Amino acid sequence: MPTPKKKKPATAESRSSAKPAPWDAKSVLKVARKSIQALKPYVPGKSIEEVKAKYNPPTVTKLGSNENPLGASPEVLKALAAALPRISLYPDGASVSLRQALAKAHGLSPDRILVGNGSDEVLLLIAAAFLNPGETVLVSENTFSEYEFAGRVMDGKIVKIPLKDNRYDLARFRKRLALKPKLVFLCNPNNPTGSYFPHAELEALLKAAPRNTLVVVDEAYCEYADAADFPRSLELLAAFPNLIISRTFSKIFGMAGLRLGYCFADPELIGQMARVKTPFNVNLLVQAGALAALGDKGFRARSIANNLEGRSFLERELRSRGLGFVPTQANFICFRTKRPAVDLCEDMLKQGMIVRALRSFGLDYWNRVTIGTPEMNKRFLQALDLALKA
Amino acid sequence: MPTPKKKKPATAESRSSAKPAPWDAKSVLKVARKSIQALKPYVPGKSIEEVKAKYNPPTVTKLGSNENPLGASPEVLKALAAALPRISLYPDGASVSLRQALAKAHGLSPDRILVGNGSDEVLLLIAAAFLNPGETVLVSENTFSEYEFAGRVMDGKIVKIPLKDNRYDLARFRKRLALKPKLVFLCNPNNPTGSYFPHAELEALLKAAPRNTLVVVDEAYCEYADAADFPRSLELLAAFPNLIISRTFSKIFGMAGLRLGYCFADPELIGQMARVKTPFNVNLLVQAGALAALGDKGFRARSIANNLEGRSFLERELRSRGLGFVPTQANFICFRTKRPAVDLCEDMLKQGMIVRALRSFGLDYWNRVTIGTPEMNKRFLQALDLALKA
Repeated sequence: MPTPKKKKPATAESRSSAKPAPWDAKSVLKVARKSIQALKPYVPGKSIEEVKAKYNPPTVTKLGSNENPLGASPEVLKALAAALPRISLYPDGASVSLRQALAKAHGLSPDRILVGNGSDEVLLLIAAAFLNPGETVLVSENTFSEYEFAGRVMDGKIVKIPLKDNRYDLARFRKRLALKPKLVFLCNPNNPTGSYFPHAELEALLKAAPRNTLVVVDEAYCEYADAADFPRSLELLAAFPNLIISRTFSKIFGMAGLRLGYCFADPELIGQMARVKTPFNVNLLVQAGALAALGDKGFRARSIANNLEGRSFLERELRSRGLGFVPTQANFICFRTKRPAVDLCEDMLKQGMIVRALRSFGLDYWNRVTIGTPEMNKRFLQALDLALKA
Repeated sequence: MPTPKKKKPATAESRSSAKPAPWDAKSVLKVARKSIQALKPYVPGKSIEEVKAKYNPPTVTKLGSNENPLGASPEVLKALAAALPRISLYPDGASVSLRQALAKAHGLSPDRILVGNGSDEVLLLIAAAFLNPGETVLVSENTFSEYEFAGRVMDGKIVKIPLKDNRYDLARFRKRLALKPKLVFLCNPNNPTGSYFPHAELEALLKAAPRNTLVVVDEAYCEYADAADFPRSLELLAAFPNLIISRTFSKIFGMAGLRLGYCFADPELIGQMARVKTPFNVNLLVQAGALAALGDKGFRARSIANNLEGRSFLERELRSRGLGFVPTQANFICFRTKRPAVDLCEDMLKQGMIVRALRSFGLDYWNRVTIGTPEMNKRFLQALDLALKA
């Protein structure tokens, strides 16, 4: 039985009692890591609340963040409500049931699956497990920012490859394999252009990649793709142990607010990623909701059908207005305007229409609109037409 | 308008089509980071489901993970239910409303607050923002494992300081400041012993610490502490710009399943941590629930009252059984038995009573029981008495 220890007074060891100055922007660099100073803050889409507060339009329609315009599955809402009484208990840290359900849905074993607090965390876990300081990370220009983010947090050397005709240039990626990158990040379909690279190009890249180069394909939007030659990436997993496929519940499952990403990979790679994950990274409600989402095939089918219908409609309408756009395989369309996109989008925001200007993606004259419900799409075109006249 | 690019066949660059072997435990070390191989897998407490499946007792009482025995606030459940229809939308990445509410509740400005996916993530963000490879991290033996985890993920050099009489030995921490550690992690009250160090010891350590040594005090259980000399850590924030205080919604707020941790620090330090956080690290439901939790002062008061009552009761009962225990300032009690704790706890598991054997904390003959409701505490003593006889 311990006895309370007597407190020693702080004396000789104590430093002067002069009050130390708070950190400022310069002095904090003495304690902060150098490599993270190059990180650019993430630029999120505008929220409905922000637009209401700033412009006070009669209604606000959000087509700026590629969320599911149908909302979430009613089955998910039911499962979440049922799980509420359990929130005081820790979640299953290994997300066993969820990983089993994902495994079943994809014909894989659960040891090939890791889940995370959004794809963002999954991408970071990949870097934390495999990227040593100074190792090379191949990424594309004009793509989702979190690949570069993950690479920089772990002090990687970022090498960027430009798009070619608004598409990922996999031939150039292949050439740059000569740099022996540790990580290659690919986004397919690409956010924000919506373009894709086909199965044969992915397979060729994998064949050319050294064994110790891990190729990460982020397929956040793949469920919307209908091109006959869109990669059947899961089929490549067995043949290429350096392939990692990342996916998300934010889009097709309508769960962006809950944050759930996952990835498929070789079991040993998954084991390394699991080492660096925090013990309870996916919360209890998220696990319950995701299980229900996987069970609701109808919601998924409705989401895809709505997207295909909206895609045809919007592509036709953009074409009829003479606006350039990238044929999309995702749930959004990237279109070009003569006015800087920031100005055009500002004009639409005033009308309560949230569309993303792609400046933060390095595309000053391009806008990205989420494919909405038929009503949302019409509202978008009305707002666009007014903004184009301005 | 882009034209689809013609696909180039993969030829000369392609490597042999011989199928590469999957990774095994040895070969994966060629791609994985060396520093993470020393990470020990986190050992979570047993879940109710696990115990039901394995032992099939008539009921299961969980006093193994320091969850709130009152569950969660009804106000939180209401707020979560109300937020369900919004889960298809991205959360506010900056958690503005939540940080404002936390700021108001603690008399600080919001720029001194960071929120994360559990304290686990907050601790990791601290390491990711400040710890360069090879820099020293001071931690205690027999304490929460995530300090060492965060340090190892960022490739720090871990230096461990033993407990003294089951308490953090802050005098020895002070001496080890000569190593110029980048990070010092303190747990107060300590998990799993429940012991604490007083205000004067913390202040003396802070006075002795070099400016570039960041002192992180994890106060996950501080709301339960009632010792007159328990640190008033917030009062030290202004005077010591290298102090970081970490707290959680998992305990007093009964939200372990939702994962929400936060920390207080100098605004410039918070800014550096915000750089390395993923854009949407705290989910939409969690933000809504936490706001409601902060508003329900009654639940908090009931939780504290229940804990004090249970603490007196259990300490008295343990004493009457001649069992050694550490006087606690937290919501759990660490007690010693002659039998190895793993065996004793196994005997209690068979009776449907989950208590934690502290082997994974390096304490083979110590057990940790969460202070429950009066009914739970009685059940615990019944199970304990049976197990002690075995």
